[in-house]
Amino acid sequence: MYPVYPPRLTEEQEEYLLTNLKDWSIAHGLAVRPAPSYVPTETDPSAALATTAPVTLFPSLFPGVCFEQARNVAEAYNELYAAIASDETWLKGIVEELVEIDDFMANLWKVHLKVKEEGYAHAFTLGLFRSDYMVHVDPSEPQPCVRQVEFNTIASSFGGLSSKVSGLHKHLLSIGAYPESLNSILTDSSLPPSTSIPGLARGMAKAHEAYLECAPTLPTCVIFLVQDLERNVFDQRHLEYAVNEHGIRVFRLPFSRVLKDTHVDANRKLIYTPPQSPGQRFEVSLVYLRAGYSPTEYDNEAAWDARLQLERSAAIKCPSVLLQLAGTKKVQQVLATPHSPHLKRFLPDEKQAAAVLKTFAPIYPLDKSEAGMEARKLATNPDSAVRYVAKPQREGGGNNIYRKAIPDFLHSLPESHWPAHILMEMIEPPEQNNVIFRNGETQQGGVICELGVYGACLWKQGDADGKPHITSNFEAGYLLRTKGDASEEGGVAAGFGAVDSVALVDV
Amino acid sequence: MYPVYPPRLTEEQEEYLLTNLKDWSIAHGLAVRPAPSYVPTETDPSAALATTAPVTLFPSLFPGVCFEQARNVAEAYNELYAAIASDETWLKGIVEELVEIDDFMANLWKVHLKVKEEGYAHAFTLGLFRSDYMVHVDPSEPQPCVRQVEFNTIASSFGGLSSKVSGLHKHLLSIGAYPESLNSILTDSSLPPSTSIPGLARGMAKAHEAYLECAPTLPTCVIFLVQDLERNVFDQRHLEYAVNEHGIRVFRLPFSRVLKDTHVDANRKLIYTPPQSPGQRFEVSLVYLRAGYSPTEYDNEAAWDARLQLERSAAIKCPSVLLQLAGTKKVQQVLATPHSPHLKRFLPDEKQAAAVLKTFAPIYPLDKSEAGMEARKLATNPDSAVRYVAKPQREGGGNNIYRKAIPDFLHSLPESHWPAHILMEMIEPPEQNNVIFRNGETQQGGVICELGVYGACLWKQGDADGKPHITSNFEAGYLLRTKGDASEEGGVAAGFGAVDSVALVDV
Repeated sequence: MYPVYPPRLTEEQEEYLLTNLKDWSIAHGLAVRPAPSYVPTETDPSAALATTAPVTLFPSLFPGVCFEQARNVAEAYNELYAAIASDETWLKGIVEELVEIDDFMANLWKVHLKVKEEGYAHAFTLGLFRSDYMVHVDPSEPQPCVRQVEFNTIASSFGGLSSKVSGLHKHLLSIGAYPESLNSILTDSSLPPSTSIPGLARGMAKAHEAYLECAPTLPTCVIFLVQDLERNVFDQRHLEYAVNEHGIRVFRLPFSRVLKDTHVDANRKLIYTPPQSPGQRFEVSLVYLRAGYSPTEYDNEAAWDARLQLERSAAIKCPSVLLQLAGTKKVQQVLATPHSPHLKRFLPDEKQAAAVLKTFAPIYPLDKSEAGMEARKLATNPDSAVRYVAKPQREGGGNNIYRKAIPDFLHSLPESHWPAHILMEMIEPPEQNNVIFRNGETQQGGVICELGVYGACLWKQGDADGKPHITSNFEAGYLLRTKGDASEEGGVAAGFGAVDSVALVDV
Repeated sequence: MYPVYPPRLTEEQEEYLLTNLKDWSIAHGLAVRPAPSYVPTETDPSAALATTAPVTLFPSLFPGVCFEQARNVAEAYNELYAAIASDETWLKGIVEELVEIDDFMANLWKVHLKVKEEGYAHAFTLGLFRSDYMVHVDPSEPQPCVRQVEFNTIASSFGGLSSKVSGLHKHLLSIGAYPESLNSILTDSSLPPSTSIPGLARGMAKAHEAYLECAPTLPTCVIFLVQDLERNVFDQRHLEYAVNEHGIRVFRLPFSRVLKDTHVDANRKLIYTPPQSPGQRFEVSLVYLRAGYSPTEYDNEAAWDARLQLERSAAIKCPSVLLQLAGTKKVQQVLATPHSPHLKRFLPDEKQAAAVLKTFAPIYPLDKSEAGMEARKLATNPDSAVRYVAKPQREGGGNNIYRKAIPDFLHSLPESHWPAHILMEMIEPPEQNNVIFRNGETQQGGVICELGVYGACLWKQGDADGKPHITSNFEAGYLLRTKGDASEEGGVAAGFGAVDSVALVDV
């Protein structure tokens, strides 16, 4: 489908490209802290070293129609998930199917119930979403389309680095680092900038402004809730600095310190006391979670107490517990189950609903419903299983079971656990190649690209009708993540991800 | 003279300050490639790691009157050195005194003579200067003043990092990383931003524009002439990217590759052929030297051929050989010798000349002139020597002989070599402390600060009168460099330099 790309470089071309890539990336903060496998901890005990974030040398090819398709549904997706997170009754039905087999979701739901009992102290919720897609080529269709891989409602990462990597590729183009043979493919207009840094920051600023309407009595701040060790810290810092540009103070709070450094006052305000300045107190307008999304982070009761403390406070959460739950794959599955009535419930606008529907890959439950029983047949038959992937309902990725491995995997589980997974038709992306730079080394070969489109949405909880009143809703830039094609032998290692940007092509 | 500063930090304050410093610096390219003593080459063979450039945790205190004094003479200094570099007859007199004892200057002069014989092919010269000062406290004077340490006419470094470090300190202030006790000292207005990145880039853009008036026939570019291994590469890259913003292509050319990648055509145009794109040719508008300033770089005849090739070309040089020679300490000495007639020769404006004169520390030759004989007495007598420093005439620094070491040093040399040094009254800076962060470690103690003021000046060679016709002349930002006070025992290691910014104080 694509032209042959990228071209093989001469030694001098590769040297020029790599030198400029390595210098530009560090000069612009397109960086990560190096992994211990690259730099042993004893070499750098204070963690002052950094290196270029894993990136592709070339922007990957991406059909222009698919890029537009994905961006055009961003606002509809925002609206959809705002509506889902606002419909507690409906969500309850989803969650109840899973609580018995999924402790994490069960515990999140308990947090929600405790706060509900007391009454929610805030009216606004902020969603900073990322809807991830791959290009799907169906030989029977004239054009490729995007199909959704997952929808992230919590800790959607790489928005900071994404703006930088699109800047990197545009810079490399401008300095002639790409061979002239690419002049027809790579142009200033075929490389759209990613506006994720200002976009996501604007979303946070909108939430902060909404909080200010409640007339806070203390100086205010936004809290970035973070993990203790974070190698991807610059991704987060770029967002922080962009929020600062709105005149807003930001503090990074490790999840493990929530109970030490914050408390909820009599008015349910979340009060933050910086450990470096114990005489100061800030009223938290917004808690932006870049932690607390993974079950492994809740390995003690205090972590759940911390999450409850945030949830019951008057600070706006990005996301709330309900919004985090709305991001479960079970929701994606229920929406994408053929002839599901749910989509139009949340998206009454038919045109919007149709556009969203087009991005769904058929998803089946593995339960005992009619669709589920059909899916079980498809999944346990080796001939049909090759077109599918089985995914755990939980967030995080990395535990997917692909194609011919599915039948054996399912048979290794008691049938009662099958519903913890969903079965999804595999997306068949077009083949292409790229070169990934990571840990100071390049690896070349077949790659798979995933396009993420960020969305920012702020809404106020509705009254009896359970409908959100959306006050801000916009698309907020894009991410291209590229990894080695698992089906390749040799070449780029499977799962070896890099940040990338799109070179739009007509197909 | 200064308030007690900086305050001792609690463990939590230091942690907050350092974490933010480490992250902000990498996110904004305030970085260097790590030294092999920090990261062994085998850990990072492709040199993809970076670390925070050596910086101070706090902006150092600096008297506001001294800062203004140094900035106010920037344009006069530009004019002065443009005039000196344009007066070949006068410079010849200076150089001739040194050629016998200084091969490097002798060889530079030969390059000039060869080009002169053929006739200079260019009319414009660009100076990107840095005049370095220290605050001098004379107990008999009511106010401190600045005294010049040296005047750099070639490869004036740290203009890229300087803008960044002033940005860092302003950021740390804005996020409350400095204790509240400093609120009266550190304010937004007491921390002036350094405009060295846009300032120096604007200087280069002016030269490029001047070249364009000659109607080049090929695509044009600016060449950054660089050393093969450069750990301070980001300092240079920030200038490059700022030049790019003027719509100008920039290539980095290692000094060792001049003869390979460039040639001078029949019209004396300097033609650059990028090794990564051998079919392309660029006409070089400006050669900006960040290499070629040190004798050790000319360890083979080809290096001199390379320098000659650049000099005889029609490209504008920053600096020309004559301008490089004008930067010799001998010139500084001749100007600063009490009652010297030279200053007014080059700076006819009396007010300007008086302002420049005020920045000179008395400087004596060590030759057999009357002033020289007086200086020899001062330098060989241990009692008076303690107020002086002996400096080699050449650029580069690092070989200064201080105070009581001078007599023995001179006696270790044949007297015929004494004139290769000048004797300068020591500047007596006020005491202060700071904390330097370098290679992941902090060191605290007494420090000495050196203020550099950048200047950009473009001129056209005059006709018979030898006077330059200046077409651009402006101050271009500042640098504060801070290093451990050599007189301190323990504390910050002597000579251990860091980039810094000023916190202006009333004294």
